[in-house]
Amino acid sequence: MRITDIREAAIPVRSAMRNAVFDFSEMTTSIVAVVTDRMVEGRPVVGFAFNGTGRYACGATMRQRFIPRLLKEAPEALQDAEGFLDPEKCAAVMARREKPGGDAERAWAIGTIETAIWDAAAKARREPLWALLARRYGPGTPGGQVFCYVGGGWYHPGQMVADLQEEMRRHRGAGYTMLKTKVGGLALDEDQRRIEGVLQIVGEGSNLAVDANGAFGRDRAFAYADMLAPYALRWFEEPVAPQDFALYAEVCGRYPGAIGTAENLYCLQDVLNMIRFGGLRPDRDILQVDPPQAFGIGHFARIVQAAEAAGFSRAQIFPHGGNQMSLACVGGLGLGGCEAYPGVFGAFAGYADDARVEAGWMRLPDRPGIGFEAQAELYALMRDLAPEAAG
Amino acid sequence: MRITDIREAAIPVRSAMRNAVFDFSEMTTSIVAVVTDRMVEGRPVVGFAFNGTGRYACGATMRQRFIPRLLKEAPEALQDAEGFLDPEKCAAVMARREKPGGDAERAWAIGTIETAIWDAAAKARREPLWALLARRYGPGTPGGQVFCYVGGGWYHPGQMVADLQEEMRRHRGAGYTMLKTKVGGLALDEDQRRIEGVLQIVGEGSNLAVDANGAFGRDRAFAYADMLAPYALRWFEEPVAPQDFALYAEVCGRYPGAIGTAENLYCLQDVLNMIRFGGLRPDRDILQVDPPQAFGIGHFARIVQAAEAAGFSRAQIFPHGGNQMSLACVGGLGLGGCEAYPGVFGAFAGYADDARVEAGWMRLPDRPGIGFEAQAELYALMRDLAPEAAG
Repeated sequence: MRITDIREAAIPVRSAMRNAVFDFSEMTTSIVAVVTDRMVEGRPVVGFAFNGTGRYACGATMRQRFIPRLLKEAPEALQDAEGFLDPEKCAAVMARREKPGGDAERAWAIGTIETAIWDAAAKARREPLWALLARRYGPGTPGGQVFCYVGGGWYHPGQMVADLQEEMRRHRGAGYTMLKTKVGGLALDEDQRRIEGVLQIVGEGSNLAVDANGAFGRDRAFAYADMLAPYALRWFEEPVAPQDFALYAEVCGRYPGAIGTAENLYCLQDVLNMIRFGGLRPDRDILQVDPPQAFGIGHFARIVQAAEAAGFSRAQIFPHGGNQMSLACVGGLGLGGCEAYPGVFGAFAGYADDARVEAGWMRLPDRPGIGFEAQAELYALMRDLAPEAAG
Repeated sequence: MRITDIREAAIPVRSAMRNAVFDFSEMTTSIVAVVTDRMVEGRPVVGFAFNGTGRYACGATMRQRFIPRLLKEAPEALQDAEGFLDPEKCAAVMARREKPGGDAERAWAIGTIETAIWDAAAKARREPLWALLARRYGPGTPGGQVFCYVGGGWYHPGQMVADLQEEMRRHRGAGYTMLKTKVGGLALDEDQRRIEGVLQIVGEGSNLAVDANGAFGRDRAFAYADMLAPYALRWFEEPVAPQDFALYAEVCGRYPGAIGTAENLYCLQDVLNMIRFGGLRPDRDILQVDPPQAFGIGHFARIVQAAEAAGFSRAQIFPHGGNQMSLACVGGLGLGGCEAYPGVFGAFAGYADDARVEAGWMRLPDRPGIGFEAQAELYALMRDLAPEAAG
């Protein structure tokens, strides 16, 4: 199995959302197609991926460095023992001639290509990616399903608590039991009224998480920690700047509930630093690394293994990015659950068009690979890149 | 003073060097021209910069995000009270709509443009950049000169200790007193023979630093620390991976001499983490952040101030990147010294063609701005981007 071509395109995300820190009005994402010489039903196997949510397109670095390194490599050096493409070997080749450190500059370019190679490798085996990942890095989730919650509650101009409650009612109606809402975009007392409004819809605190997107300094983080503690929420996400380990340690020392973090950490070393110096508590805190943004699924699996070695359970890992790539990782590696962003990021979020959530759980797909073929709007963009693909 | 255009080009560095970790055969760098409406002697003031040494060109992110944000902004919002371009305001505008964390993905794109704006702002004032920086972030170095050492001793195929000694003799003949040589590319005993060979040329250990480029794991870092300690070298640079703060703390606890680090840290928060968790000793260790790679000179000045607040003296700061941008920072902020890489990075290293080093010291230039106009080979590339510029 050989790579014959790798193509990428930058697509505007067209999201009107904002959180406590920034808006998405200029946001783009890169979609990638890895074309192979392996034929299935008369068409070449093509692996697809996109670079997740919240980070800009990275096609130039792909074209200038990572795609040429793969295409120049001897094809056998990119294969596993069975002759399929080996995504971890591909990632190692892409990482050549890179100066150590500064990982974020290349983490999602390499990670998105690596994820597309996983899609191709699973399609060539005619199995869902989660099943391949379960054999490689498992155990997978039991029962062929994963827990899924909604990352919602974004701020809109003119939004009232009743509007937010209406949004949350809609998510509950769609089968979700756990919801997440933004905090930090308003004054504390206004945010508290939002939280109490949402709790009227979701019931107990364990059905609700809140997300500050790293907006708080020390005083405001402490004020929110103290305000939030009595609600016993599922977790308090990114209270402070993503690399401020010392301040994380202070917040973890003050807030009794779970803290969620690490969606903005892009390599194993940074996650280890957060665990070592950020005061995270292995019995409760939540890790949220984004696989295609953090050098890909192979590197993500090493992060999961390192977190386990530090005492975290896989049930405490909820990868960032509500999409079928994170779904395959959660299902394959047996993690805590997936995020969903209904209606927020257009084509670049969500699951198969026929996916259903029931009482908070979603069945894993049967389709080969990641399964983008079952997302009509997203797959139309991917097919434009590789019209020779099946589907 | 308004920006009328910003242009960039990616240029291959064409270096045959390698250190203990990677080679530079594919390396590129971005050069930037910020064209303004301010006229001096009948020509528009144009600010220039390039994105330093060891990190690839970043023109696509400049074109897609940072240049449009500056060109769309109201010109008055980018000016200081006197009507000159304000590089710190420009950096803040470029940083809009960026998700916190993942700094390295944008640090050198923003930093290179910001540095070019400093060049333009100083040229519009008809003064050298170091003088403008001394007023803004000073005090500058006394006596109008800076200490300068050679970052050399790279590995070459077939190189003998005598070849390395010949290189070091050449640097001494050119006026340098302090030299640096690579370690970690050979076995410890071979590296030790190289060091003893170089010490025969440079005299006492305080005239020699060594650089492992982050190559070592724990055991090898300890073995080198123990081998190096008796030589009392000027510093031992990047013994381990740049963000492995826990291992840095172990090495700092074991090695009595100075450790140098931080050329691969790209924002204030990461440097603070290194100081807090890396075990650095404020009375001796050396910080080497690269200004145009770390969000630019304004952000670099905040890092210098934070290091001072933590007990480091400015004499312990030796910015990475042996070029006139770091020279202006050393001269303006009164730092420990500059690096030079004679003959290694082609046009993308070094100082004015008429610069001279005497007994380890170099006079600061009198030319307005950074002074690239006095580097014929480099300035020819810059003029290609902005033929309307003076010089």
